[in-house]
Amino acid sequence: MKPIAPVLVLAGGLFLPTIGLAEDGVSPGTFVANNVWMMLCAGLVFIMHLGFATLESGLTRAKNTTNILFKNTFIVSIGILTYALVGFNLMYPGDFNGFLGFAGVGLGAGYDAAANTPEYANGGYTYWTDFLFQAMFAATAATIVSGAVAERIKLSSFMIFATIFVAVVYTIAGSWKWGGGFLDGMGFYDFAGSTLVHSVGGWGALAGVLLLGPRLGKYVGGKMYPIPGSNMPLATMGVFLLWFGWFGFNGGSVLSADPALTSFVLVTTCLSASAGAVVAMATSWFAFGKPDLSMALNGVLAGLVGITAGADTVGITSAVIIGAVAGALVVGSVMFFDRVKIDDPVGAISVHLICGIWGTLAVGIFSTNAEHSFWVQLIGIACYGAFTFGSALGIFAILKLTIGIRVSEAEELEGLDLGEHGMHAYDLGAGPGWQEQPHGRSAQSALVTAPKLVTSEST
Amino acid sequence: MKPIAPVLVLAGGLFLPTIGLAEDGVSPGTFVANNVWMMLCAGLVFIMHLGFATLESGLTRAKNTTNILFKNTFIVSIGILTYALVGFNLMYPGDFNGFLGFAGVGLGAGYDAAANTPEYANGGYTYWTDFLFQAMFAATAATIVSGAVAERIKLSSFMIFATIFVAVVYTIAGSWKWGGGFLDGMGFYDFAGSTLVHSVGGWGALAGVLLLGPRLGKYVGGKMYPIPGSNMPLATMGVFLLWFGWFGFNGGSVLSADPALTSFVLVTTCLSASAGAVVAMATSWFAFGKPDLSMALNGVLAGLVGITAGADTVGITSAVIIGAVAGALVVGSVMFFDRVKIDDPVGAISVHLICGIWGTLAVGIFSTNAEHSFWVQLIGIACYGAFTFGSALGIFAILKLTIGIRVSEAEELEGLDLGEHGMHAYDLGAGPGWQEQPHGRSAQSALVTAPKLVTSEST
Amino acid sequence: MKPIAPVLVLAGGLFLPTIGLAEDGVSPGTFVANNVWMMLCAGLVFIMHLGFATLESGLTRAKNTTNILFKNTFIVSIGILTYALVGFNLMYPGDFNGFLGFAGVGLGAGYDAAANTPEYANGGYTYWTDFLFQAMFAATAATIVSGAVAERIKLSSFMIFATIFVAVVYTIAGSWKWGGGFLDGMGFYDFAGSTLVHSVGGWGALAGVLLLGPRLGKYVGGKMYPIPGSNMPLATMGVFLLWFGWFGFNGGSVLSADPALTSFVLVTTCLSASAGAVVAMATSWFAFGKPDLSMALNGVLAGLVGITAGADTVGITSAVIIGAVAGALVVGSVMFFDRVKIDDPVGAISVHLICGIWGTLAVGIFSTNAEHSFWVQLIGIACYGAFTFGSALGIFAILKLTIGIRVSEAEELEGLDLGEHGMHAYDLGAGPGWQEQPHGRSAQSALVTAPKLVTSEST
Repeated sequence: MKPIAPVLVLAGGLFLPTIGLAEDGVSPGTFVANNVWMMLCAGLVFIMHLGFATLESGLTRAKNTTNILFKNTFIVSIGILTYALVGFNLMYPGDFNGFLGFAGVGLGAGYDAAANTPEYANGGYTYWTDFLFQAMFAATAATIVSGAVAERIKLSSFMIFATIFVAVVYTIAGSWKWGGGFLDGMGFYDFAGSTLVHSVGGWGALAGVLLLGPRLGKYVGGKMYPIPGSNMPLATMGVFLLWFGWFGFNGGSVLSADPALTSFVLVTTCLSASAGAVVAMATSWFAFGKPDLSMALNGVLAGLVGITAGADTVGITSAVIIGAVAGALVVGSVMFFDRVKIDDPVGAISVHLICGIWGTLAVGIFSTNAEHSFWVQLIGIACYGAFTFGSALGIFAILKLTIGIRVSEAEELEGLDLGEHGMHAYDLGAGPGWQEQPHGRSAQSALVTAPKLVTSEST
Repeated sequence: MKPIAPVLVLAGGLFLPTIGLAEDGVSPGTFVANNVWMMLCAGLVFIMHLGFATLESGLTRAKNTTNILFKNTFIVSIGILTYALVGFNLMYPGDFNGFLGFAGVGLGAGYDAAANTPEYANGGYTYWTDFLFQAMFAATAATIVSGAVAERIKLSSFMIFATIFVAVVYTIAGSWKWGGGFLDGMGFYDFAGSTLVHSVGGWGALAGVLLLGPRLGKYVGGKMYPIPGSNMPLATMGVFLLWFGWFGFNGGSVLSADPALTSFVLVTTCLSASAGAVVAMATSWFAFGKPDLSMALNGVLAGLVGITAGADTVGITSAVIIGAVAGALVVGSVMFFDRVKIDDPVGAISVHLICGIWGTLAVGIFSTNAEHSFWVQLIGIACYGAFTFGSALGIFAILKLTIGIRVSEAEELEGLDLGEHGMHAYDLGAGPGWQEQPHGRSAQSALVTAPKLVTSEST
Repeated sequence: MKPIAPVLVLAGGLFLPTIGLAEDGVSPGTFVANNVWMMLCAGLVFIMHLGFATLESGLTRAKNTTNILFKNTFIVSIGILTYALVGFNLMYPGDFNGFLGFAGVGLGAGYDAAANTPEYANGGYTYWTDFLFQAMFAATAATIVSGAVAERIKLSSFMIFATIFVAVVYTIAGSWKWGGGFLDGMGFYDFAGSTLVHSVGGWGALAGVLLLGPRLGKYVGGKMYPIPGSNMPLATMGVFLLWFGWFGFNGGSVLSADPALTSFVLVTTCLSASAGAVVAMATSWFAFGKPDLSMALNGVLAGLVGITAGADTVGITSAVIIGAVAGALVVGSVMFFDRVKIDDPVGAISVHLICGIWGTLAVGIFSTNAEHSFWVQLIGIACYGAFTFGSALGIFAILKLTIGIRVSEAEELEGLDLGEHGMHAYDLGAGPGWQEQPHGRSAQSALVTAPKLVTSEST
């Protein structure tokens, strides 16, 4: 029986009872259950990549959809491969000076007797699960950039950038806190990556957008012309999949299946996402006269990014407030970036950078742990900003000076799908009133010769 | 080695061996594993909201898609927030008179030392997991209404209705059985919510549809004109996601990861869904001359809704029969409601109300537990029908008399996407033969001024 | 702290420490956790059916989409039902002569006291979980055929074929290895089904395609005309969902949640998929001049199918090599089959048959278990090929001689959606510039009479 409580109670992660993580190690059952949880969380973070792919495809134009899908398939693949090759050992290097360390090339470094037993990571997971979960995280940072630079970036340049960003920039930055580096020593706190993942991706996105410039036709003659998304069900699917994936992103960041802590984290996560959605709906309704679906979707993501830094250490009420502020912030931020002509087709900078910063600061405001300091949080944000924005700007600048980073104007008008891949993303003309071509071929790929010839030959 | 068995064996939940739920509590490993299962089930029920969003979008017209997506994003968000504020404490109020009780405003009421330890809920899950799982359930009831009233309901009115329905009506109704109220005392049985969730949503849908009337052009001059769905892959995706989510909806309703019981429930659930699909395919083939995909999809859902009340207490053969009957029932029901001019765009009333009633009665017919009574099941159905249909009718009636519940005829013709949100859901004209506009902008949002001006200025 | 390792270490499944599977059985917590994992893996394999449905729909033409969705909904449903009726007892028959055995009609045969306790399957899962996981596997084999024969096969014939294939052919073939039959006795190894599932499906696909012939207009006058897919976001979604589902397909094939082994399997699986994607991207870029999204997607699947036979028994580096070879192989194979005019709309034969064979041979090359032999692997591949290709050819031939297997030329031109189901899959004309019909009905189903009549009557 639950006792009566008159108001929302502040319940911080600090006071949550933990179980089974005794000093002498966990029971076999607990170890197995922990590892099941962490493997499934890795799977959930993996599915976030589908979420990003569909969200970005939905919010941009149909003529650039194939290109976006290709980039997202590439990022998760190259992200996993490079994380195995160097990333894991850069991010968790063992002994290092606090700024940089490297445990060697190649996965399997830690494969000894202890690496897959309860002795590794206090029985929270095995060595392999550790790698997989972290590898899925790594790839998300580069994916965030993908959406912001969409519809105009040269494919080859993006692929080079993404590879370096995920393999080196993200992992070195990550080591400073999660690898036990200098920011960890200072008491900087980022539970699941408002800064380490989302702001890092957001800084990369900002660097790319600044060097690329806006899409053709977006800002003309002092006016801003909205370029609406092509497929809102796809975008909505993306956001729901991301929310679903966040069960693993935040829930897995407990690094075990500790019942009290994991379930508390899921509750703060979902409350913040919900508050973000509702407030973004209201804000857009107020600002535009009609409630905007894109803003509602970005509100969900804003709430999720915002709670990520402190999901285990702020109370229930605080989680709602953090999400609500993020929901309003993302609407204002999207409007602001459009005003200053920073063209971000999917709002990635607003969602991941701005709300990532907000969420990291919110730890300093709302944490139930007295050791968390607003000023240390601010220092951490500044360090990550300087390093990742600088690095991303440098990589993009070198690419711009060498092979170029933007497609030609003609290709941008025609669409990157034809220009970079020689194919269309959609050919849905099968509804009523649609005129079927002879031989059941509704259309020819742009790569092949005239279909009329075929028709006459085979009739 | 499995022994030979000549026929399908009736295997009831009652005889399933249970494990680890000894009187003295469960082992730490069992508690962790139970909680992992329940958290993931909450995640699976969450993803049902994406299932509903895509199913409803796919089965309705493209001009109302943004509106549907917006509503579904709103429902899950407001559902979680209101469940934290009042719902959880209305539904599981502790001591109450059997009809109504309230444990107080706000989540965290139960947050004491015992709330996240194995002592809470016999080690099945923590307090936070309990909230999250139930919150995800709550929001589904309102979502069911969404589909039935689609394509003509005024957004603001629906949002008010959904908020009250999920926060108050669903939760009070739920308390009568799952909260330990009077129907629970009478022996009424509803394992996972054929009545408590699906019929409750279905009654709300029926009330809304009756007060709204049919869509323009659906019934004209004594004839019924089918309004085909706009996106069948989206609808199919919705049904597969709902089936997937039902692993958590029914599997999680065991309220622990008890191996025998959870796995048995998943088997009855999947068998019933499969039987529903195959029988609905056959029935529609017989009735229409061609096998209908919409009916096949509704057959899956019919089987799922039908088995939900008794998934743990009927045998394998019974599960197949329950699903098969549901599959035939849903086809007949859709045809019946069209005949009486009750316009339900997605068949929600047939799937959730009719099959929900069938599933609840089926417990009285097929249960292996002798204590389950057909007549008590009937009483329960009647109580839920009277209360939720009455409440929903009342709320909709007040809204109709005050701010109105239906959009204007002009807006309905134009589509709610433009009318309520000022945007289109799709702009996929990038296939072969599609004429790209200057400046790479295929189209302008309805909210902005003429794109031609831009073109001339910037050329 | 991870020690430094200079190169990728070969880490075979053989040396992985196992836990909790002591001779005396597992602890209650381990049993519960194992079963949770296996149930969720069944759910993940289930969602692969949505992956196949969306992949196949996306890679084919919009006029055949409803038909594909219908077939995929049917296959998973009939697959589960027939597996309950006969499949499970054919595949795991208990004592048999090594070639054929049958434990009797009907599920529940094994339902005795031991069937849901830790004594069953060494505490890895319950009897019901065993059934469900294997049932989900069974249905995938028939689904593989679906894509290859798409856009021209007669629905009723396909339904008959799929039912026999999943109920009898797949299960008998499966019993030879997984049921403890003669190939298991010979030392043939196929961890999760490169041959038993994927090649089996691929052989069925090849048989169907050979008897059906190519789609109209594909090969005309000695030239090959590509028929591009209609919906690349849908296809991409399919591949991501299949990858996600493979967490369960391979991870669940450990048949417990053994931490070291399951997590190792997930890592080899993801590395191989990633390598397949990247190499297929590079290969298509080299071969076609532009990087092809369809090939990238097939590269992911190639890597997944390739690693499936040896995911637990090859090292990390080997997993990358296996995936890389598969990624190149699938591009070459697609081009080869087009050259010899074997028309496979989705590349199913290349992905599942060719890469399934490759993966099975790769066990003989890369396995860390000295007992695995290249020649025995070859014998196994030959046995499966002969039996399943022969059986599929026989079933299709009988169908061709009796009710026919191909739709009429007129129906193929018009599309199977109208011909077999009387409905369109898409009606998305709601974007800007789209002309709304009176009464808000954008279009009429092909089954109903002229909408103009309605319009005039109700105006």
